[in-house]
Formats: sequence, structure tokens, C-alpha cells
Amino acid sequence: ALVEGVQTFFTPKLLAGKKIMITAGSTMEMLDPVRGITNLSSGKMGFALAQMAMRMGAETTLVYGHTHAPRPLVSHAHFAATADDMYHTVMQHIAAQDVFFGVAAVADYKPNMRSSQKIKKSEDILTIDLIKNKDILADVASLPNPPYCVGFAAETEQVIEYAKQKRLAKRLPMIVANQVMTAMGNDNNQVTIIDSKGEHTLDTDLKTNIAFKLLTHLKTQLDLD
Amino acid sequence: ALVEGVQTFFTPKLLAGKKIMITAGSTMEMLDPVRGITNLSSGKMGFALAQMAMRMGAETTLVYGHTHAPRPLVSHAHFAATADDMYHTVMQHIAAQDVFFGVAAVADYKPNMRSSQKIKKSEDILTIDLIKNKDILADVASLPNPPYCVGFAAETEQVIEYAKQKRLAKRLPMIVANQVMTAMGNDNNQVTIIDSKGEHTLDTDLKTNIAFKLLTHLKTQLDLD
Repeated sequence: ALVEGVQTFFTPKLLAGKKIMITAGSTMEMLDPVRGITNLSSGKMGFALAQMAMRMGAETTLVYGHTHAPRPLVSHAHFAATADDMYHTVMQHIAAQDVFFGVAAVADYKPNMRSSQKIKKSEDILTIDLIKNKDILADVASLPNPPYCVGFAAETEQVIEYAKQKRLAKRLPMIVANQVMTAMGNDNNQVTIIDSKGEHTLDTDLKTNIAFKLLTHLKTQLDLD
Repeated sequence: ALVEGVQTFFTPKLLAGKKIMITAGSTMEMLDPVRGITNLSSGKMGFALAQMAMRMGAETTLVYGHTHAPRPLVSHAHFAATADDMYHTVMQHIAAQDVFFGVAAVADYKPNMRSSQKIKKSEDILTIDLIKNKDILADVASLPNPPYCVGFAAETEQVIEYAKQKRLAKRLPMIVANQVMTAMGNDNNQVTIIDSKGEHTLDTDLKTNIAFKLLTHLKTQLDLD
């Protein structure tokens, strides 16, 4: 806490007066009370952003799913177990926000049926039907008066190309592209920012430092708005 | 470390000279590089057992999957990401063991296909076929000269009944039954031991204390063999 206080003291308050919401971690879509479909996501990048947003003076709201990482102290924190939970929590608090970062690995699909009791493994083959979850980021970006929306694209191939498509499809002013294998679980990351002015590739760095650079870049964009 | 040293000093060395293997945590069965099917399991019960087995003087081998809990110091520790990994790691080291505790929430099923690239969410409905994983505990118990096998049954309904069936079906000398909702993620647990002599219900207690009672009960069973 002392170290955090000192860090906060020496970090420029570029985001003072701004309200920033960040989703982090992963959701888990339950098949029954114990089994579910989830994404590998450490939550570290989202938590680093939330911590840095606090240090830079923003009123920071964290909506977090399942994660192994230690959660930073923020202005408001809400746990969301499933994609539906996260959708509702985000929408409940989004109106007040200036900026929205969708960093969480939200499950794209959920089982179309959830058993209230533990499924017994009697069958040799089990077929499950998955239905699409609502797209939190796209829906936030489509609000009548949306916050400045930043997406994250974690891809295994054609990283920049897919990120560009995702930015346009969801009508996001900014998206941050990273390679799944580089990012996942690591303290380091290597990202490319894509916005209306093109691509900005940042050097490989600690997620905390990446967070500072992203938020500083964000600040220049907010000033242009 | 000091506290652990003191605790170890004052714990009776009932299991000195014994080799105990414990599985803990949950496996994750990948659909693609980022998505998978897993179980909610904190890993706390398995880790408590491993820590207590160490304190009681056993040479302890931990085979652990995904977990949020701090891992205790043991004689040998192996990470196993999937049910197949866990199966192979257990089988590689099982011959030397006197006792096997199957505490891990091993996924019963895995996707019959795993995509090497991240699946794009183009479809509204996705159907996945799951095939059964090998049953680690049943296969260990069926070895020609098996260790003393202890299973764990986490059930949402008919807890004792299902646990008894599981004990007989897998030919286990001992099984520990618990209610999913009581056990999951908590530091406390309430369990019933089922062995050839019947049922022994333990009081609700810290998982560390439950671990001590289970291992003490186990010792009496080993002495009878």
C-alpha cells in the first residue's frame, strides 16, 4: 500500500476527472453447477489498466470475471461470473462513463441449456449446443451517446488484420491487438494500437508499462474529441 | 515458512515412510488455444491434504491442474493442464506409491476436435461433440498391485448414495463424499468417509483439519491391511 501510494504520487494525473470502466478476467458459462466453458485469461492486462487508470487520477470501475491475479484497489469493483452477468453489470453503470475498455475474455457462446444438477457421465459421447452471447463491447459502442470505446483483440493468426476488422465491425475508435501466445498469463505483452490514424506498435514491455502507454495515448485521443 | 516448520514439528509423524500421491485442482479441456471446458474447483481440499501429508511425514507427490490456491511445498509437484496430461503424469509415478488420493476435478469429457487456431464466432449456434476422458482413479484402482485408493465424490444431490455407487464401481477401499455447494471454494468443508466398515460423518471444519482427520483415518486403514 505504501509503494502504491508513492507510485500514485509520482504518476501524472492525466486522467483526473475522467470516469473509466474496464472489464477484466474471463467469464464462465456453466453446463451444470460445476462444469463450464471458459477462456484462458489471467486478467493481468485488465487489472494493470485499472491500476494505472487509478494512479493517473481516473474514477475507475472494474467489472471482473474469473481470474488468478491479485485485484487492484479501484473506485468501484463488481464481480461478474458469466457473460450475461457481465453484460448487465456493464450496462447498469455505463451511462456515467467517459471511457470503456473491454479487456475481459467474454465467452462468445453459452450452453443453450444448463442443468441444475451435476450431469452424470453415463454417455460415451455428449453433444452440447452453444448459443451466442450478447456482444458487450459492440452494444456499448452502439449506445446513443457512447463512451470512448477501446477493444482488445487477442488472436492466434493474422493478428492485425482481424483486429482491424473487429474495430470496424464494432465501430470502435480504438482497438489494441495482441498475439494470444505472447500475452496470455505473462507479465509482459507486445501490442499494436489501431485507431483512425493507423497502427502504433509498442515495444514489448511489462503490462503495467503497456497500460501507462495505452492510457497516455487514450488521453491524446480524448483531447482531440 | 517458520509457521509451517513449527506446525510440522508438532504434527505426529503417523505417515513416515509412506509415499502418497494426491491430485488437485481442475483440468481444462481446450476447444481452441484460448477456450476450454473446465470445472469449478479451488484446489483447496487437495492442497490441504498434500500439506498435511507432508506434516505427517509422508513423501508427498502432488499432481495439480488449474487452481487459484497457493500451492504447498511438497516432495514432488507436477502440473497437468488436461485430463490426458494428468492421466499420463499419474501413471508415470504411480508404481512407487502406497496411497493415491484422487481429489482433482478431472473433466469427464473433452472436445473430440481441438482447433489449432482461435475459432471465429461466425455461427449463431455451435455444436460440439465431447468424448469421454479416461478415468484416472478407476484405472489406478485396477492396477495389478494398486496403491490404497481414496476417491472424492462432489455431488449436488443424493450425495451419500452416489458416493457409495462410485466407490463400488471404481473398486475403491475409501471414498470421501461432500456436497458441492458446501465444499466449493470454501475454506471449510463437511465430509462423510465411506469405507468397508460403513459411513463416518465428520463435523464441519477447516479443510486443513478435515485433511488431518482423513489422513489419520487412512492410517488406521493402512495398519489393518
